[in-house]
Amino acid sequence: MKIAILVFDRLTALDAVGPYEVLSRIPGVELTFVATETGLVRTDTGRLGLTADATLEELARPDIVVVPGGEGNRPLLDDERVLGWLRQAHEHSTWTTSVCTGALLLGAAGILDGKRAITHWAYREKLREYGAEPTIARVVEDGKVITAAGVSAGIDMALTLTARLTGDDVAKAIQLGIEYDPDPPFDSGSPEKAPPALVELVRKLEG
Amino acid sequence: MKIAILVFDRLTALDAVGPYEVLSRIPGVELTFVATETGLVRTDTGRLGLTADATLEELARPDIVVVPGGEGNRPLLDDERVLGWLRQAHEHSTWTTSVCTGALLLGAAGILDGKRAITHWAYREKLREYGAEPTIARVVEDGKVITAAGVSAGIDMALTLTARLTGDDVAKAIQLGIEYDPDPPFDSGSPEKAPPALVELVRKLEG
Repeated sequence: MKIAILVFDRLTALDAVGPYEVLSRIPGVELTFVATETGLVRTDTGRLGLTADATLEELARPDIVVVPGGEGNRPLLDDERVLGWLRQAHEHSTWTTSVCTGALLLGAAGILDGKRAITHWAYREKLREYGAEPTIARVVEDGKVITAAGVSAGIDMALTLTARLTGDDVAKAIQLGIEYDPDPPFDSGSPEKAPPALVELVRKLEG
Repeated sequence: MKIAILVFDRLTALDAVGPYEVLSRIPGVELTFVATETGLVRTDTGRLGLTADATLEELARPDIVVVPGGEGNRPLLDDERVLGWLRQAHEHSTWTTSVCTGALLLGAAGILDGKRAITHWAYREKLREYGAEPTIARVVEDGKVITAAGVSAGIDMALTLTARLTGDDVAKAIQLGIEYDPDPPFDSGSPEKAPPALVELVRKLEG
């Protein structure tokens, strides 16, 4: 089973590395970070580099596609090489997935048209521009498309996907292996839970 | 404020990237991935490369040290260059932290002697070899040392640390920014919650 995780300059690292940490532990998978060119990409803070080991064309037909987000994907929203790869990959994929604003790229490729989907909370309404129906949930499945909410939601998405791929037991074993028994010190991880003034502040920073 | 995250070959990516994603969002921080040599390290699965942008000697006195885990840290447990850096950094640091089996490296450097600490659940008892008292919690603070449980616990640790550094409001804003409102599809993320047979299976795979 071939898994492709798309990376690009100014991506959000955890969007990609959360799903990587879960999916790479599935027995027998061949997981590859792909980009328009092989080599390093820098994350949105500039403080970390991640490698792409294959070009898009070298992995044209992955079984599973994972598209992370980050401000660096905005130039890709009209990049025909990336959109064309995504469309072709989606045509043959078993599952096509996104994390955070990665959903905007799926949308730009036409993959979310008529589908329920989610993205980072500050971008939910933008999904409508691509014909998608924003659906407030941590992980949204519609057919073979799975979209996750912001950044850290990629971990939940990947565990859900693992269960679909291999059954609940493998997903539970991976959850235990990465000791994913989350216990945030605060309860302000979504706009429904955080104080309204904080939501407005962070919306401005994100926007 | 200077933050150093140690990386090395065959580290567990999420151990490092979870804290990075939180701590790099603190206004004014200067976060750097450090290693014995600059350049690429490969993660424990071999499927991802991460960059180190400074050598240990180039960042000898960070304010905050983050030590991730992964099987690749075993050769470091008697590497005097790494242990010496850690001891010196700890002498001057505001906070010295670890994620997962990163705690073993803190232990080998003598930093956990007489302290309460935690690590990946499969290695808890090993902490005693370093004079530490294994303490079952997601995040354990003892003086200026903060240790986190396995892999994903680094996110909770980093939010706790952010609150100590900057106050609760910044930590809550970062939590909202990364939409950290976790919702795992299963409740098997700790050995206290997972079925015993699964715990034994994963213990064998981890060991």
